[in-house]
Amino acid sequence: MPQREALSPLLPVAITTGEPAGIGPELTLMLAERGELPPHSVAVGDITLLAERAELLGLKVELAACQPGEPLPEGPSVLPVWPVALDTPSQPGVLNAANAAYVLATLAAAVHACQNGHAAAMTTAPLHKGVIIDGGYPTFTGHTEWLRDACGAEEVVMMLATDSALHAQVSGWQGPADLRVALLTTHLPLRAVADAVTPTRLVRISRILAADLTRQFGIAKPRIAVCGLNPHAGEDGHLGREELDIISPTLEALRAQGLDVRGPYPADTLFTPRHLAEVDAVLAMYHDQGLAVLKYAGFGNAANMTLGLPLVRTSVDHGTALDLAGTGKASPASLAVAIRLARHLADQRAATCTTSHL
Amino acid sequence: MPQREALSPLLPVAITTGEPAGIGPELTLMLAERGELPPHSVAVGDITLLAERAELLGLKVELAACQPGEPLPEGPSVLPVWPVALDTPSQPGVLNAANAAYVLATLAAAVHACQNGHAAAMTTAPLHKGVIIDGGYPTFTGHTEWLRDACGAEEVVMMLATDSALHAQVSGWQGPADLRVALLTTHLPLRAVADAVTPTRLVRISRILAADLTRQFGIAKPRIAVCGLNPHAGEDGHLGREELDIISPTLEALRAQGLDVRGPYPADTLFTPRHLAEVDAVLAMYHDQGLAVLKYAGFGNAANMTLGLPLVRTSVDHGTALDLAGTGKASPASLAVAIRLARHLADQRAATCTTSHL
Repeated sequence: MPQREALSPLLPVAITTGEPAGIGPELTLMLAERGELPPHSVAVGDITLLAERAELLGLKVELAACQPGEPLPEGPSVLPVWPVALDTPSQPGVLNAANAAYVLATLAAAVHACQNGHAAAMTTAPLHKGVIIDGGYPTFTGHTEWLRDACGAEEVVMMLATDSALHAQVSGWQGPADLRVALLTTHLPLRAVADAVTPTRLVRISRILAADLTRQFGIAKPRIAVCGLNPHAGEDGHLGREELDIISPTLEALRAQGLDVRGPYPADTLFTPRHLAEVDAVLAMYHDQGLAVLKYAGFGNAANMTLGLPLVRTSVDHGTALDLAGTGKASPASLAVAIRLARHLADQRAATCTTSHL
Repeated sequence: MPQREALSPLLPVAITTGEPAGIGPELTLMLAERGELPPHSVAVGDITLLAERAELLGLKVELAACQPGEPLPEGPSVLPVWPVALDTPSQPGVLNAANAAYVLATLAAAVHACQNGHAAAMTTAPLHKGVIIDGGYPTFTGHTEWLRDACGAEEVVMMLATDSALHAQVSGWQGPADLRVALLTTHLPLRAVADAVTPTRLVRISRILAADLTRQFGIAKPRIAVCGLNPHAGEDGHLGREELDIISPTLEALRAQGLDVRGPYPADTLFTPRHLAEVDAVLAMYHDQGLAVLKYAGFGNAANMTLGLPLVRTSVDHGTALDLAGTGKASPASLAVAIRLARHLADQRAATCTTSHL
């Protein structure tokens, strides 16, 4: 740990607290009270809102406002906050489209801090897509796409990792539960998936995945297992031809370019310890093929991250849970994992830059 | 355990040893040598083949031929065998279409024994579909369909269960890893799945699943969680309409008829302990949605079973592994689970019949 700290530039991880009527604000406060926030974490959000939620839930947290670029206040149960003001007060569980701009302003503040060298990474608590749309942003489709556009990135990749995968990164532990799953397609109706499996997409996503496993995770030559689209990976064409016609030839071409992409493998037998032990990540063709098993393996301790951005961004793997907001019953486990992952990736990236100038 | 034994009719579980060039024969021998076959198990296959494989691998097993209806020979390392003769000798790893009829004859013998009251259940080691087709059975599509037709059943359902689920049945253990997954569709190309999710199919499969959870597992009022087809179960129609147009109304109709079918739920969050603890089985819409997570959870200790038949049939969850045949390196774990599950289900069924005449 001291070695890792020494490599860190000590820049903060900025935590955007997300939809103000959701569980994001209270999860951040819970971690601060429990001392479970890594050092150099800062919340981005409305400080009055955070004070109200702390009061409501009896959480003893000292909120300390500061600005990007200033030293972070320290101390037990201190939560540094980069203030962004609500447009209108927020009640737990009650969405209000008048605060849509506020939610996006917290994201913009975190991106700005990352780009200006005032933050090492950002972690996002959940927002509510519908209320952002209703608030005057009809083309908004989610955090990931918003960040892609804000950063001017061409393409991004959604990847989830279990806490044990994070653990493997931090301590060198090697075990069968080490699981990272990236998705070729994300939020598409199932009947649209097969046509979205194209050589172009497979090439772009594979390259981003390989590049960021190196850049963000420090894996020199990442090994990627690619799932087939069809059951049994098509069984030699008996159960679908996409493996023969698209996936296999594209992977062959990528291998010729030096990428270690393996498969396509049947998804139902790929997720077993023997196979997982031999690769650094799995590329699933679609949402439920990869995420059902990842979230089972993670038991609520999985984090989401976006690859392909010029900054480090991690996220919880759950939604705003409006029904739980204000009750203190929601678990901060996923947020904790996401922040630790962001911290680790930022440190890893700093170490890579320091040692190899990559 | 004594109580369970007392309820058992002591009829054997018939183990069809499957493709003679595959790992089925040696897995059966390995379990016999290790004393891991439950009492009242009998192999169905060629006795010379079994003797050759035992010799090749140095397995000390006493093969004891007998006929259905006769008492089974007993003793340490004794493997009772109902003999079915090969048509031509078999070498490990070398498929021979001349033995296709032999493989089907072992199945027929086991079905016949179940129907005549000489076996309590059957467990199938893997066969090789292609070589059966090449051997003169061009319409052969697999064990499951062959058994459906042999038994005159209208529709069957493929369900997999992890060993911990079996454990839960046997000892009353209640834990989050208790997992049974049935499939609405099985071996279809992914692009054909959406159109196969019809009200008719959903009604038929749900009814068979509920009926056999009662008849075979002794669950009086089975609770079934149904997955959505699309990511996030369609997110209110934003990611596909099958949930709104087909699945939800059909489940509503089934509930009105008294079936406890819940959902549709997003598949990526359904497979978590909190949700799984509240249901007896999950109905997935398609192969990789349900089986990737089940096989991850089972770690090679999952068994396949066929619901909707008039007999109990369980199966390994793997193939013939021709590359491992004759090496002794294949694991008999899944076969062991499948046999224990068959034994348990047969005993459960006998107990249900004894106590309630259902």
